[in-house]
Amino acid sequence: MTQKRIAIFGSTGSIGTQALDVIAAHSDLFSAEILTAQSNDALLIKQALQFNPNIVVIGDEKKYLMVKEALASTSVKVFAGEKALEEVAGLDCYDMMLAGIVGYAGLRPTLQAVGMGKAVALANKETLVVAGDIVMQKARENRAAIIPVDSEHSAIFQCLIGEGNNQIDKIILTASGGPFLGKKPNFLVTKITIDSATLMNKGLEMIEAKWLFDLTPQQIQVVIHPQSIVHSMVQFEDGSIKAQMGLPDMKLPIQYALAFPKRIVNNFPRLDFKKQHALSFEEPDIKTFRNLALATEALNKGGNMPCILNAANEIVVYAFLRNRIGFLDMTEVIQQAMQKITFIEKPTLEEYFETDGEARNFAASLIHM
Amino acid sequence: MTQKRIAIFGSTGSIGTQALDVIAAHSDLFSAEILTAQSNDALLIKQALQFNPNIVVIGDEKKYLMVKEALASTSVKVFAGEKALEEVAGLDCYDMMLAGIVGYAGLRPTLQAVGMGKAVALANKETLVVAGDIVMQKARENRAAIIPVDSEHSAIFQCLIGEGNNQIDKIILTASGGPFLGKKPNFLVTKITIDSATLMNKGLEMIEAKWLFDLTPQQIQVVIHPQSIVHSMVQFEDGSIKAQMGLPDMKLPIQYALAFPKRIVNNFPRLDFKKQHALSFEEPDIKTFRNLALATEALNKGGNMPCILNAANEIVVYAFLRNRIGFLDMTEVIQQAMQKITFIEKPTLEEYFETDGEARNFAASLIHM
Repeated sequence: MTQKRIAIFGSTGSIGTQALDVIAAHSDLFSAEILTAQSNDALLIKQALQFNPNIVVIGDEKKYLMVKEALASTSVKVFAGEKALEEVAGLDCYDMMLAGIVGYAGLRPTLQAVGMGKAVALANKETLVVAGDIVMQKARENRAAIIPVDSEHSAIFQCLIGEGNNQIDKIILTASGGPFLGKKPNFLVTKITIDSATLMNKGLEMIEAKWLFDLTPQQIQVVIHPQSIVHSMVQFEDGSIKAQMGLPDMKLPIQYALAFPKRIVNNFPRLDFKKQHALSFEEPDIKTFRNLALATEALNKGGNMPCILNAANEIVVYAFLRNRIGFLDMTEVIQQAMQKITFIEKPTLEEYFETDGEARNFAASLIHM
Repeated sequence: MTQKRIAIFGSTGSIGTQALDVIAAHSDLFSAEILTAQSNDALLIKQALQFNPNIVVIGDEKKYLMVKEALASTSVKVFAGEKALEEVAGLDCYDMMLAGIVGYAGLRPTLQAVGMGKAVALANKETLVVAGDIVMQKARENRAAIIPVDSEHSAIFQCLIGEGNNQIDKIILTASGGPFLGKKPNFLVTKITIDSATLMNKGLEMIEAKWLFDLTPQQIQVVIHPQSIVHSMVQFEDGSIKAQMGLPDMKLPIQYALAFPKRIVNNFPRLDFKKQHALSFEEPDIKTFRNLALATEALNKGGNMPCILNAANEIVVYAFLRNRIGFLDMTEVIQQAMQKITFIEKPTLEEYFETDGEARNFAASLIHM
């Protein structure tokens, strides 16, 4: 059996490093063909020395020479810059891209891979949130399989396997309902933490799910499930519900996406119903979680509205993490952006890029950044 | 699209009548080709007049003339007796048998259908409990699909769809843990109720699951789940768990089995996670539910031991329902039968029949029936 050649875009991030753990544990099945990082040159070099990929790309061009020099004694080809990311995604030397770049920056390389008909293990929500119609259309045209890595979408994907033309009545996305709950004071706060706390991540997941599974907004429900054991569910047209469950552990959906359609034995900790005594569910409080209401509005409206939502959100979260605005101000800014930026019903890719820029500038101007 | 011609064995029982409801609601998809009943001639006649099947069989030969006469003005062919049940199962005029006869009596007609390579929607646990090796071997040889109707096994079947060669780590059968809980005083007590109360039904389901899904005893776990929402689960080799859920309603797995691989839209009440706030799980107490321990022992031992367990259980439940023995005596009698009847590791079908008779006689002798 030949190895599946994996291109990890965003190899130094949380998803990327875990994907490399999976590859290291199953070197008979996978090889790391391409590794890319935005700025963490030290880790990228370390990974390149361990996995001996064909190519590495460092996004930050100032770090090119450093990386090049460190890998001089190896056969690893080194490139740098945003443009190189996109070009490398267009090469034919890999079988599957793991799209692990966080945020809007992941869109262009992923589009490139899809255009090549490559399988994409998609960990980057924004790709579909911003330009889902264009990405999915391109995937259909080029027969590129998109396999979600997000635990929620992986759950839905797993529940749909083998169901053929059986129709979905609705999907039920589960939300933990608050990452600050029970955390220690020195808990690391990142964009993903903030998005989880505001339920914006769930809103983005709703939009992502719409495109991945070809759903109407009415077919997407969010339920708060504090234990994070049920990763999401599908209710079929006959009323039967299928759920995928497990301990919260990103390695499982990462491994699933890389190895699909095969499952691989592993030693990850396992859910045990002798110890897991209760699972609870409740409706999200839209009045508290106003971002979820905004995301639902963007989902319903369609066009470039999710792109506006996402761009404004990236700006306000960045500002919040730097203590430039308060927690509740974030929602205000997003809402204003959604009201002020010109709505386009069927944007071209260029119009998406323009919308993204406009929304960022507008949001930044409101918070004087 | 042509109708699927269904042969309902046990059409006047709980499963049979619900299957006819499904057929009546989807007469474009299904026709009732054969209906059989043991003794309820009045309902069988009524069903025949409504569904106009090709053939009806009444098990009790004394009722033949009554049924024959009532259907004289129709084109329905009428047969009677145990032998006729088996012969009719061997006809080629139907596409799928719904094996809805309760207890050991369902074995012979089901074997006949499997031998003809017919699809079997299996609602009769005992077929596999008693002679699972022979039935499954015959199904493989004749490429007969066996689709479970039991909600637990239907759940597992649904979770396995599309998983190809992915290995099962274990299945988790859920048990409500007591059908007497919260019931009204006039609640009808039947064999199925008693088997649920003693968890013998869960024990029989473990044995059934072993054969249906080709599992070792160690791969089968039972968990108490009082809400009966999660109908059962599968944990795969990668640790991922898939569950099938819904309101407790036998019509759904019946419809699923009849229409497989398609799902059909229906108006059955639906599970709503806005109303279902909690699901709980706990380990069964083997000391209280001694029948579950006995069934596990039979499962581990294999051979004709499950056949002995089932035969003795049918006798003691019959006796208990007629106030001939106490609730706790039932387990004693089954245990003694398992100790006293000769163990056979690889019984022939004839030896299964002999074991069944011996175990029944032995159990009956202990309770002076």
